[in-house]
Amino acid sequence: MRLSVSFYVTYALCLSLGLLCVLFVTCWSSYWRGGLSWADPALKFNWHPVLMVSGLLVLYGKALVVYRVPFTWKQKKRTWKLVHAGLMLLALVLSVLGLCAVFEVHRDSHIPNLYSLHSWVGMCTMVMFSLQWILGLAGFMFPCSPLWFREALKPIHVWVGKAILILSLTSCISGIDENLFLALNGSSAEPYNTLPVEAKFANSLGMLIVAFGLVVFGILSKSKWQRPETDGESAPLMLNENNT
Amino acid sequence: MRLSVSFYVTYALCLSLGLLCVLFVTCWSSYWRGGLSWADPALKFNWHPVLMVSGLLVLYGKALVVYRVPFTWKQKKRTWKLVHAGLMLLALVLSVLGLCAVFEVHRDSHIPNLYSLHSWVGMCTMVMFSLQWILGLAGFMFPCSPLWFREALKPIHVWVGKAILILSLTSCISGIDENLFLALNGSSAEPYNTLPVEAKFANSLGMLIVAFGLVVFGILSKSKWQRPETDGESAPLMLNENNT
Repeated sequence: MRLSVSFYVTYALCLSLGLLCVLFVTCWSSYWRGGLSWADPALKFNWHPVLMVSGLLVLYGKALVVYRVPFTWKQKKRTWKLVHAGLMLLALVLSVLGLCAVFEVHRDSHIPNLYSLHSWVGMCTMVMFSLQWILGLAGFMFPCSPLWFREALKPIHVWVGKAILILSLTSCISGIDENLFLALNGSSAEPYNTLPVEAKFANSLGMLIVAFGLVVFGILSKSKWQRPETDGESAPLMLNENNT
Repeated sequence: MRLSVSFYVTYALCLSLGLLCVLFVTCWSSYWRGGLSWADPALKFNWHPVLMVSGLLVLYGKALVVYRVPFTWKQKKRTWKLVHAGLMLLALVLSVLGLCAVFEVHRDSHIPNLYSLHSWVGMCTMVMFSLQWILGLAGFMFPCSPLWFREALKPIHVWVGKAILILSLTSCISGIDENLFLALNGSSAEPYNTLPVEAKFANSLGMLIVAFGLVVFGILSKSKWQRPETDGESAPLMLNENNT
């Protein structure tokens, strides 16, 4: 009972921080950066931070911890495997759209792609995330997946899952920092080092992102909060349909 | 035996990547940024990336994994507690010197302190690291430390230790990215987006830092590589002198 209470308090914090991250990044793009529009080339870039923070960080982080929620432990694991895979797919789609936004803006404005360290780390994160999703699908959802493959894949899947969270956090922070330097030091009357209201707001967004990442990481690190292994976790979805 | 081999291969990779990070950041500062000098105000800043990468990331990361080295398991834990605390203190001292370098440069050049997101995250990392070291000393090294305090502190110490690694990685990546934008887009004939040799080199340093961070994190995540709890780990140093 105490375990559940401490989990749900942490989980509520995680959900609140995630929501605040999405609100802050949307507000930053809408209020200070002119708003969101795919049709207007000047505003298309703003989708990049919104979709990356919402998809690659917040939704990804929430998908990482779905197995930890105690009320799901009484339900079939296959349901929560589908929720996990579905949320991850949605996170991946949002991130790919976020990447498309920045690639299209670069193409239209004749800015080279993938030159900054932020973009190198971000691209690494996306490649790892895509491979992780495909291998996760092949290993844990396909009925024909051999047992040795699933058993070998599971610790790698868990470790890579946390590594992607770390890289996602790093990409978001370096991206916001870079964006503030480019936006405020370019044409703004108030450069970044005068710490105008926008800079304080976007820096606060960065700190919320750090807090969210660390809370997700904390939930994952606590072994007492892991789903008990009572339903043949290693078995793939279709072979494991009747477990509870 | 197989366990040891797989550990030592990963540990050798960790040591090599750490060494490469230090070499790359020193080479970047020396060859492209004019060299290292505390006396010359123009070169003092270069100590900042060198000391932060060497102290807050590489030495810190190596201090995190000392307990994992199998040959130390036969030796007294108090010896390795001292090695762990000593390496951490050295990492902290190097990081504080790295902070002093940038604060002094800012003071002399009339640049405001702590305005960028990189500096906010970096300062968070430093505050957490300092508190962690002081609390670790009080909890695990002082003979008068009560058992309830040590037991309550241990999971927090482990979690915060990993959180600092993540924040350190994030600070280093955002700092290098920021530094390249400021240095190359200011007076350089080859701006960052033309990806000159310096940018490729420093971006590669960033990727080495990511690889080092993830390998350290991987070593910490593998429960089979944890030091066996055979010598009363919860007991403080002085009360535990004769354990083996």
